[in-house]
Amino acid sequence: DRPFTLIAGPCAIESRAHALETCASIKEITDRLGIGLIYKSSFDKANRTSLKAVRGIGMAEGIDILADVKATYACPVLTDVHAAEQCAPVAEAVDVLQIPAFLCRQTDLLVAAAQTGAAINVKKGQFLAPWDMIQVVAKLHGSGNDRVLVTERGASFGYNTLVADMRSLPIMARDTGSPVIFDATHSVQQPGGKGSASGGQREFAPVLARAAIAVGVAGVFAETHQDPDSAPSDGPNMIPLKELEGVLSILVALDAIAKANPVRI
Amino acid sequence: DRPFTLIAGPCAIESRAHALETCASIKEITDRLGIGLIYKSSFDKANRTSLKAVRGIGMAEGIDILADVKATYACPVLTDVHAAEQCAPVAEAVDVLQIPAFLCRQTDLLVAAAQTGAAINVKKGQFLAPWDMIQVVAKLHGSGNDRVLVTERGASFGYNTLVADMRSLPIMARDTGSPVIFDATHSVQQPGGKGSASGGQREFAPVLARAAIAVGVAGVFAETHQDPDSAPSDGPNMIPLKELEGVLSILVALDAIAKANPVRI
Amino acid sequence: DRPFTLIAGPCAIESRAHALETCASIKEITDRLGIGLIYKSSFDKANRTSLKAVRGIGMAEGIDILADVKATYACPVLTDVHAAEQCAPVAEAVDVLQIPAFLCRQTDLLVAAAQTGAAINVKKGQFLAPWDMIQVVAKLHGSGNDRVLVTERGASFGYNTLVADMRSLPIMARDTGSPVIFDATHSVQQPGGKGSASGGQREFAPVLARAAIAVGVAGVFAETHQDPDSAPSDGPNMIPLKELEGVLSILVALDAIAKANPVRI
Amino acid sequence: DRPFTLIAGPCAIESRAHALETCASIKEITDRLGIGLIYKSSFDKANRTSLKAVRGIGMAEGIDILADVKATYACPVLTDVHAAEQCAPVAEAVDVLQIPAFLCRQTDLLVAAAQTGAAINVKKGQFLAPWDMIQVVAKLHGSGNDRVLVTERGASFGYNTLVADMRSLPIMARDTGSPVIFDATHSVQQPGGKGSASGGQREFAPVLARAAIAVGVAGVFAETHQDPDSAPSDGPNMIPLKELEGVLSILVALDAIAKANPVRI
Repeated sequence: DRPFTLIAGPCAIESRAHALETCASIKEITDRLGIGLIYKSSFDKANRTSLKAVRGIGMAEGIDILADVKATYACPVLTDVHAAEQCAPVAEAVDVLQIPAFLCRQTDLLVAAAQTGAAINVKKGQFLAPWDMIQVVAKLHGSGNDRVLVTERGASFGYNTLVADMRSLPIMARDTGSPVIFDATHSVQQPGGKGSASGGQREFAPVLARAAIAVGVAGVFAETHQDPDSAPSDGPNMIPLKELEGVLSILVALDAIAKANPVRI
Repeated sequence: DRPFTLIAGPCAIESRAHALETCASIKEITDRLGIGLIYKSSFDKANRTSLKAVRGIGMAEGIDILADVKATYACPVLTDVHAAEQCAPVAEAVDVLQIPAFLCRQTDLLVAAAQTGAAINVKKGQFLAPWDMIQVVAKLHGSGNDRVLVTERGASFGYNTLVADMRSLPIMARDTGSPVIFDATHSVQQPGGKGSASGGQREFAPVLARAAIAVGVAGVFAETHQDPDSAPSDGPNMIPLKELEGVLSILVALDAIAKANPVRI
Repeated sequence: DRPFTLIAGPCAIESRAHALETCASIKEITDRLGIGLIYKSSFDKANRTSLKAVRGIGMAEGIDILADVKATYACPVLTDVHAAEQCAPVAEAVDVLQIPAFLCRQTDLLVAAAQTGAAINVKKGQFLAPWDMIQVVAKLHGSGNDRVLVTERGASFGYNTLVADMRSLPIMARDTGSPVIFDATHSVQQPGGKGSASGGQREFAPVLARAAIAVGVAGVFAETHQDPDSAPSDGPNMIPLKELEGVLSILVALDAIAKANPVRI
Repeated sequence: DRPFTLIAGPCAIESRAHALETCASIKEITDRLGIGLIYKSSFDKANRTSLKAVRGIGMAEGIDILADVKATYACPVLTDVHAAEQCAPVAEAVDVLQIPAFLCRQTDLLVAAAQTGAAINVKKGQFLAPWDMIQVVAKLHGSGNDRVLVTERGASFGYNTLVADMRSLPIMARDTGSPVIFDATHSVQQPGGKGSASGGQREFAPVLARAAIAVGVAGVFAETHQDPDSAPSDGPNMIPLKELEGVLSILVALDAIAKANPVRI
């Protein structure tokens, strides 16, 4: 019944100034369009393709910057956790803990995240079927946390390619009872596609977002950057910040129709 | 710039009366919604899973019935051809010759179909990438026929499953220069999924159609039947006729937004 | 209990002299190794990627050349058919009619081939599961022909890639009751992988052949050519003729162990 | 040049007595066959499908039992680690640290494992191409550890299914320079295939092992149990202990031929 929520931000926290500026720019857009924003950024890229790739600003400083963003713009913030012991400190400052796709079956991480009481956004592994998320969500519910989001971000399709199966959106909604998010920018990754780094097809992120919104989702996840080609990670698949409003305004129009006509399966 | 065209009808020509009645029902709906209709039905099911499955009414009678439908409702008609020698006689009565997905690389069939001068709708094989359709369309163009439509109907995804990759729609439009059709009912087939027959997930046909329309397509292909569960073929994936108007009216609304905001890749 | 049979030859019949010479070379090898040979070559490449690609020598001349090869070397011959009307004339000269993978569900072709009484080698479509071959073989049996071979040649795996699932070999043997052939050279095709032509990974043909033989198959299919890089078709995946004996001699050794220890599933 | 090594044991450490007995049984077989054994068993199942599934005996007791097995049978032991902080204590008692497939891109875990100086067996993620393992191995080498094994255990193939691509074995050997292991029992898992647990096709483990050995591998990984149907985890895909010697003896025969004729790609 409501417009979709946007989960967006640069892949990595680059600096306090960059985080604050980027959030300001996105918030201006989402306020204009009347949609909610959850600001997303990572303090650590824990599974980079290469050992030599930049890891990130670190947990302590990252949390502090996200808390600053949250306070400055009255905007909930989301970040990803990669080890059980990160969950409690991160949850003190951050509204939504995100479980990365590769880690979505790691019981200790799920339980630790759930026990913080924070909202949890768990990404569906590239190796899972949509109905497999029942068990993933059950681990969170079984740990006393019902504030769960599930995110589609593509399924393995041959080598170095993902495919976004739009059936997964209503399947996950029906099977898990959780709001479903569509991650438009990771769904267009080409894992390992550039040898020592993942490639991406940035131009298809708006294409897949349109498809998902028309099917009906609670939210769209999209990484964005003022200059993706110089971003420290995920540049090939981030949406340039200056294109974001154009993309979102179409999604808002499609969403109104989709929400007025919910899919029933 | 125009609303999408609907290609629809029952999978198989069951009888003259059934064809005329079904077309009347669909035409009433598309007229009400202001969208064009191409009536589709097959005179032969040439690649049924089982030898014992019903084949169809035959070419001569099928053509005659389709000509009757065309004359009665002033509505272009489409049917599929499976052998080169069928192309000329079928093209005398039928507006659009359709090349089945399994046969989309058979040069003789493509050339014979092209040489009739009729419009050709060629379905992308489940074993092809979207960019592979460049060569398929080049066979038609190279035979002197530029009136070509290309149709997405799902790609093989493991065993007995298809996945509809929404990226293929703008890729085929860009690479072939042809109008792109999304086949919502064959994309939800489960090939061989029922042992001696293909299964289907009828409930997902409207889901995938919404996604495709929001991305932007020239047309939607959807088989429909007043009682799919008793249809001689493709029952598991046809849209019940009584649900068709509801599905289409949402597509019309989404299409208006999509056409006003064409995807650029 | 017997050694495996080799189905081999150049992809296309290039000329009478080339066919006779190539068969002589292969026959010398298979005689030395004590394995049976069925000579394979095509008179028409009916589904080339591009309209401009060479098609072949034609049916009449092709049949005549194959009859010559058969008479000269007392060696059964195999060729593929692409239309129902080709089956009867081809079967007059040729021992084994082969149904191409893309056409393995075309009922009329299967029935016409079966009715000739010739042995039939049907390739599993890239879009089929191994158990789906039950129905394909039933079409042949149901047409009165029990002399059926089934061939694995890879399954679609994402775009422009095939994967050979070694489980399919015992599954097809169990489910169809037919001798199973492993096609080592088409399993390493990269369909559409070179834009206007299919690519191939010739170096992996012996790798996959070893795997299949160790699992246990009735025969190996391998296209071969004295100079694959200048062959009119399928060059990227053919085994160079001068390497054939080396490859086969390893297969013979592995086959002895496999046949002494049949897989049971 | 040497026979392959077997990495085997029950999926989970059930008790000290069970571990000692199982190792005794396997060691008797491998001694008889003249092949090396690395005993494998897990102290924690960290990514079970369901929260309610049994986790395991725990790290401290598990290490102690593995040390006991090692001392008793003079047999190297292997276990998997799931968090960076486990690596150092586990490496004090265990010869080979194994990185689970889902975790094969987690930099911190790889670095911590590498820095122990123990040998590392890293499983290829179901979402990776064989050539993507270059970067995974580079993380280990870059952390000062060259004692690396890489293991194929199947790639995602549609939903709830894996496929073992035999090309990956020589590709990984060539690209990583590491000995390649084929995991026969996880390659036949059906992830999530039983709803609240993974299914498996135990009968295909020997089939795929034969294929891999014939291609040429440094080792075979196979979980085994005296009564798989009552095992706490992975029962559907473990090889019954009483069948192990039969399976291995065929592999030994195939391996001799494969090692005498190494694949070159």
